[in-house]
Amino acid sequence: MNDRIPLYLDCDTGIDDALALAYLLASPSAELLGIGTVSGNVGAAVGARNTLDLLEMAGRADVPVAVGSHHPLAGAFHGGAPHVHGENGVGGVSLPPARASAVEGSAAELLVRLAHAHAGSLRVLAIGPLTNLAEALRLEPRLPDLVAEVTVMGGAALVPGNISPVAEANIGNDPEAARAVFAAPWRITLVPLDVTMENVLEERHRQELLAAPAPLPRALGEMLGHYFGFYEGQYGRPCSAMHDPLAAAVALGAIDLACAPVVAVEVDAGDGPGRGQTLCDLRGRYLGYPEQPGAHCRVVLGLSQDFAPHLMQVLLGARQLVA
Amino acid sequence: MNDRIPLYLDCDTGIDDALALAYLLASPSAELLGIGTVSGNVGAAVGARNTLDLLEMAGRADVPVAVGSHHPLAGAFHGGAPHVHGENGVGGVSLPPARASAVEGSAAELLVRLAHAHAGSLRVLAIGPLTNLAEALRLEPRLPDLVAEVTVMGGAALVPGNISPVAEANIGNDPEAARAVFAAPWRITLVPLDVTMENVLEERHRQELLAAPAPLPRALGEMLGHYFGFYEGQYGRPCSAMHDPLAAAVALGAIDLACAPVVAVEVDAGDGPGRGQTLCDLRGRYLGYPEQPGAHCRVVLGLSQDFAPHLMQVLLGARQLVA
Repeated sequence: MNDRIPLYLDCDTGIDDALALAYLLASPSAELLGIGTVSGNVGAAVGARNTLDLLEMAGRADVPVAVGSHHPLAGAFHGGAPHVHGENGVGGVSLPPARASAVEGSAAELLVRLAHAHAGSLRVLAIGPLTNLAEALRLEPRLPDLVAEVTVMGGAALVPGNISPVAEANIGNDPEAARAVFAAPWRITLVPLDVTMENVLEERHRQELLAAPAPLPRALGEMLGHYFGFYEGQYGRPCSAMHDPLAAAVALGAIDLACAPVVAVEVDAGDGPGRGQTLCDLRGRYLGYPEQPGAHCRVVLGLSQDFAPHLMQVLLGARQLVA
Repeated sequence: MNDRIPLYLDCDTGIDDALALAYLLASPSAELLGIGTVSGNVGAAVGARNTLDLLEMAGRADVPVAVGSHHPLAGAFHGGAPHVHGENGVGGVSLPPARASAVEGSAAELLVRLAHAHAGSLRVLAIGPLTNLAEALRLEPRLPDLVAEVTVMGGAALVPGNISPVAEANIGNDPEAARAVFAAPWRITLVPLDVTMENVLEERHRQELLAAPAPLPRALGEMLGHYFGFYEGQYGRPCSAMHDPLAAAVALGAIDLACAPVVAVEVDAGDGPGRGQTLCDLRGRYLGYPEQPGAHCRVVLGLSQDFAPHLMQVLLGARQLVA
């Protein structure tokens, strides 16, 4: 099992976070070492509760979960996105309550501990606001040297935002934290709306999940009923974007990228209309994105394969998600 | 001739401004009533000089040219873009000096006068920074009621900017003015880099211009030698974007638009990394851009025809550009 990728997951579970978690648990190449939660889709404590319940449903109550920051670096948590993820964050689905509790200490502390324990090999996957990562950078300024790579679901490069004309929710919910994370000298892979909105899960996929023998895929299928309801207003049909599971697959290197230039990325943390935007310097597009000296962020703009079949194959695959 | 479109042109001539001017002079549907200049590609006075020279070369010294604002609303003119347009703004080409001079009064005053004289029918085409239009709005707050439509070459919606990762030069050179112009309640058509970078003039087009019998197309062909030199660094081959002539054709309704949603547009005039960006609210893209109540700006995202053949046909057409 030494080839497995040691992974810290930072999330705000959330329906697509639940899909990403299930994908990671079902992926043979992932070694999920710890999970921190942050306020975003739901509050950090609710997100931890949902995460613990999902882990127990998958028979993985051994994975430590730490509750992270409730408030963004500046200002206060605004209450999440119940219109997208339901009041409880998992589309109103009642998950069997887990016996396990969150571990002592903050999510940032868990991340720093894991980074030291797996120095040079730990990968970080952040699928919520970046508050915990920014706090971990404060706790341990050498973190960029310890972490192998950071994958972030968030931002919008050449497509519209989803909470403003230019801002995506994960970045827009804590621009100060995102600004610090993108300014730190680690390798970042950004998985923005450019690809997550183009790769959708359809009703037939949801039906396959509902018909699965294991309880977790079935619960995901139920949650997606709520999620599809929100996205019907975006796409005009019942389906959904696959933000977080796509970022999980990119973090594992499990899918081929057709276009992912390494470019300078800056986050607008001001108070103007661009607050929360990820400004990716893509001016080299007409020349096929020549190298930008000093740039350390890879922006995923296109895949060379359709993501839904891969996701379904993993979720319904041999590694059964059973308790 | 009553069906001709009464037009005020605001420009910073400039090589592609020269193309736009020649296009308008050669278009039977345009009635060019007056021209104001503004600092952008070159200073406002140099732009007026170039414009007067080009008009005389085309036998149209009757068109009044007013020198407009040298400085943007905030700060000072930075000296233009000689690396793009040459030191003299027309690619180093020596145009025969015109006998005519600029008229008395500012460009903003000329625009206001024409708007009153052609109330309800005047169209404004702005292919430089929007300083003069903003000053005209100050001089005459009822201007939006007097003008039929404003067409602006500028901005970047879903493509990178050209003077920053998100800002295009015309907007970025005077964001305060652009912010005022887009906030005013008139119908605006924005022709951004999304379409102007996709529609290019190739070396074979330049050769056709150089072989023309009339002096103006030949001068344009010479200028394009310099312009192609700059754009070779952008595209990897000698060719050029057609920013300003494309906006001129859109202003005349001479080309078919494949995608041009009417959406809210805001200009970032702050001091953050997004300064000079046109934030177009294109979040309705996955539903085919449903109507946005209150929006009054049409953003041209795609044409249904290739622009170069149309431009060449007009420039080399029956209406000879001879003195």
